[in-house]
Amino acid sequence: MTMTNRVFLLEERPDPEITERTLRMVERDVPEPAEGEVLVRNTWLSLDPTNRSWMNAQATYLPAIPLGEPMRGLTVGRVVKSRFDGVAEGSLVSGLGGFSDYGVMSGKGASSVPEGLDPRAALSVLGHIGLTAYFGLMEIGRPEEGNTVLVSAAAGATGSLVGQIAKLSGCRVVGTAGSDEKCRWLTEELGFDAAINYKTTEDLSAAVREACPRRVDVFFDNVGGAILDAGLANLAMKARVVVCGGISQYNAPKVQGPSNYLALIVCRARMEGFVVLDYASRAGEALTALVPWLQQGKLKQRYHVVEGLENAHSALRLLFDGGNQGKLLVKIAD
Amino acid sequence: MTMTNRVFLLEERPDPEITERTLRMVERDVPEPAEGEVLVRNTWLSLDPTNRSWMNAQATYLPAIPLGEPMRGLTVGRVVKSRFDGVAEGSLVSGLGGFSDYGVMSGKGASSVPEGLDPRAALSVLGHIGLTAYFGLMEIGRPEEGNTVLVSAAAGATGSLVGQIAKLSGCRVVGTAGSDEKCRWLTEELGFDAAINYKTTEDLSAAVREACPRRVDVFFDNVGGAILDAGLANLAMKARVVVCGGISQYNAPKVQGPSNYLALIVCRARMEGFVVLDYASRAGEALTALVPWLQQGKLKQRYHVVEGLENAHSALRLLFDGGNQGKLLVKIAD
Repeated sequence: MTMTNRVFLLEERPDPEITERTLRMVERDVPEPAEGEVLVRNTWLSLDPTNRSWMNAQATYLPAIPLGEPMRGLTVGRVVKSRFDGVAEGSLVSGLGGFSDYGVMSGKGASSVPEGLDPRAALSVLGHIGLTAYFGLMEIGRPEEGNTVLVSAAAGATGSLVGQIAKLSGCRVVGTAGSDEKCRWLTEELGFDAAINYKTTEDLSAAVREACPRRVDVFFDNVGGAILDAGLANLAMKARVVVCGGISQYNAPKVQGPSNYLALIVCRARMEGFVVLDYASRAGEALTALVPWLQQGKLKQRYHVVEGLENAHSALRLLFDGGNQGKLLVKIAD
Repeated sequence: MTMTNRVFLLEERPDPEITERTLRMVERDVPEPAEGEVLVRNTWLSLDPTNRSWMNAQATYLPAIPLGEPMRGLTVGRVVKSRFDGVAEGSLVSGLGGFSDYGVMSGKGASSVPEGLDPRAALSVLGHIGLTAYFGLMEIGRPEEGNTVLVSAAAGATGSLVGQIAKLSGCRVVGTAGSDEKCRWLTEELGFDAAINYKTTEDLSAAVREACPRRVDVFFDNVGGAILDAGLANLAMKARVVVCGGISQYNAPKVQGPSNYLALIVCRARMEGFVVLDYASRAGEALTALVPWLQQGKLKQRYHVVEGLENAHSALRLLFDGGNQGKLLVKIAD
């Protein structure tokens, strides 16, 4: 085990796109944990659309990353050194270990990962992705049996779980995705009732109307832009629009706001945002539902694994051109 | 009392602005009420931003008006002939009497107006405007004591009531309006804590930030466009954005959606629309609060009265250039 620590630093803020100059890999000494912290040997790194928003100069739901500082990232890894009573050395944890071989995280922020669990699941269906899908859908979207649920970026890590959970809740589920292959996966493997390839569909609003004859009761939006507008044009009365993300707009020089937002008046509907961190203390609630579904084969997830920390930077861009097939992860070490 | 009935017909759909060709006045026979209907001699006509949305080819919360048909409008008037048991001839009612001297309305849709009440109040603070302000603020905005409430078009009929009700609910209240005179009226007469003249303010977002040091808990938006974006840029955590209207966008060839809508995620906030018709059965609840406030001088309203039905068409345009000072009404007859 090498004790050199490769670290990606945030070198340039994207303007607007992530380029080869956005991050820079340097070699550093392995850091020392302070009191209350733990040092983790990262084995898996999660690449998520939200990584892009963390790169902005403006704080989001987390502080902005100063230029020249290590890039923030969610990892699974093994504790090498612990200065926090609740986390034992040698244990497997997930937390903000960063785009690096080793990372220091607060002991409180290190969640235990059960031995034997696929570490990829800890960074997806049983981690932040599963909680995002579960609480976003159940708490903000509040689907009722028989409702129609529209999900954008439905073949993505979050969207694919949202759609499956909505099916398990007795809903009609329609997804949008960026290729025929992804659309087939949604309808043939995941049980979606219909899927729309937004890249080959000219009139998105008409396509949503056709796929949702009783209109859209819950719209779980990860995309924004034209897809958000197509959903808003087809809302049912009292519809709930869950604003989970806006990946089509993260790289836009100016965000395209939803020009159909006045449909919220006519449909007496609401659009609401949320941040999964707020549900951390209620993770058990979600896992109580997710774990049995997973064990019974009722929740499926695909992984898109990129080998080697050195490829994390270029892999990030897959998220924005739809190049990944499933949850995007970087394998850093065994 | 002449028995000729002057009627404005919807001649051309605005594209996008109301022009002199939008409505056309014709003389017709006074109509006959059918079973269940009443014939009303209109005395006052309410001009509202929503009149513009009714002119569109697409239905809103009410059906579209076919071209060549009478223009829909809310009126107060006296019942000339009743074929509905619950409404007596000679009584004063409000309802959809139309842009005309006489109108036929359904008996069920005719609300009794108490004799002695200023009929202008029946078309504003104690009518659809008061209910819009009350239920929009209380049910959708849900202000809590100490909250900061931002109101756009605050010198308008609805906005001025929203601000005053928010003050009566113990909130800090900030309004936007289109002239210094209107802003002074808000702060000096209505008790608003601050007012922003959006026409002379270069950086609206900075102005809202300055006027709302603890950010915006409730944003009651009647305007859309740049003002909506300025409010979204300054939301407090768990903020509620009440989408009541979007007057800046009704005449826009393409609606400018709120480019800051992703703030809903960071602030865990919601945007929600409503239609006052849904609260008709709960009108008593609002009036129980509004009537005493009005009698105690705690709610003030200005009226902008245009004399003569023939001027209704040109007066409508005042709503879109901010030319009216207070609730816009047309006096049709004594």
